[in-house]
Amino acid sequence: MAHLLHIDSSIQGERSVSRALSARAAARWRQTHPDGTVAYRDLAADPVPHFTAATGTALMVPEAERTPAQQESYALSAALIEEIKSADTLLLGLPVYNFGPPSTVKAWVDHLIAPGLSTAPDGSAGLLGETEFIVLHARGGGYLEGTPREGWDHAEPWLPHAVSLTALAPRFITAELTLSETVPAMFELKGLAAESLARAEAEIDELWSAPVPAEALAG
Amino acid sequence: MAHLLHIDSSIQGERSVSRALSARAAARWRQTHPDGTVAYRDLAADPVPHFTAATGTALMVPEAERTPAQQESYALSAALIEEIKSADTLLLGLPVYNFGPPSTVKAWVDHLIAPGLSTAPDGSAGLLGETEFIVLHARGGGYLEGTPREGWDHAEPWLPHAVSLTALAPRFITAELTLSETVPAMFELKGLAAESLARAEAEIDELWSAPVPAEALAG
Repeated sequence: MAHLLHIDSSIQGERSVSRALSARAAARWRQTHPDGTVAYRDLAADPVPHFTAATGTALMVPEAERTPAQQESYALSAALIEEIKSADTLLLGLPVYNFGPPSTVKAWVDHLIAPGLSTAPDGSAGLLGETEFIVLHARGGGYLEGTPREGWDHAEPWLPHAVSLTALAPRFITAELTLSETVPAMFELKGLAAESLARAEAEIDELWSAPVPAEALAG
Repeated sequence: MAHLLHIDSSIQGERSVSRALSARAAARWRQTHPDGTVAYRDLAADPVPHFTAATGTALMVPEAERTPAQQESYALSAALIEEIKSADTLLLGLPVYNFGPPSTVKAWVDHLIAPGLSTAPDGSAGLLGETEFIVLHARGGGYLEGTPREGWDHAEPWLPHAVSLTALAPRFITAELTLSETVPAMFELKGLAAESLARAEAEIDELWSAPVPAEALAG
């Protein structure tokens, strides 16, 4: 049976564009996988803890040497990785804050890069490559080629590199200029923002568009 | 009287290269500012909390509308910013984990970008430009031009963009290939790593090299 893991990270609640897009993608997935199951994780409501001096090396020390704090951190890594392994598709709602990912997303990714769990013990091969990874990406500014802040969205280029050792390969669906709704100096960009959002929505609506058996849809 | 703010973020304790470099820079600063005072913050031992659903919009809502959790988050932002304003020089030990900054550094920066505190109320001008910002940057791999992973260190290009609204302008002093000490596949890079470290140390040792009055050095 198909299984979806849906993760959000925006701190903006109902005003979040990345949450609206990930919800749309999850609805599309349910529509195209009527017998599928869905798990949900909210990194803004229930954040993955930072790696700290007490926990941060948990993935690098042998099991017998782990402190209780490291054992707890390691167990969380194992659970987060198992959650991905059990999913056919992973959806991540990813906003951009101060030109990078939310710190909760960085902490989640730090927990995922684990020799022996998400990669071969020597790091030579990734073990999560069976899971499709779609990122619903929203950013307040405009960062496309030729714009003044081209290249200032560091979340987008970072994530594929960060998860590459696990063989996860994110596909980005991006809506930008989302701040044009609320920042007066950006009001003139509302039209471009609406176009960007419409493109992202259309891309979502074409996901998983392989033919679905009629009896499955009827179910 | 001159004042230094020294911040570390590595989870590696005594094995950390960024901590060794920031300690060397702090020692150099004390040597060249014998009457100066120093404050220290350790983001790995005492991490700045994530922005969450409960706290994350604290810097965006009017004072009267802040929840108790948002008031606490706002007060932390104000304290972290005041800490920088009161410093003539800020040293940040910055390692690279999974091709980005530690999540604690992202959370610290998120707390720093605050209209009315670190920028003009409308964000048009930064208020932290009086503080010199030196980043002691250590990374396990090699990311220089022409190498296979050129551009994979996303911490370095992100940080200047992230703090630009505050008028902080980081100067990076970087040691790379630090994993060549422990990762067998990188042992052949030990020579290059040693050269990189020596260059970083030499650069640190030339900081604040303007002449210092003899009586100050004697004190």
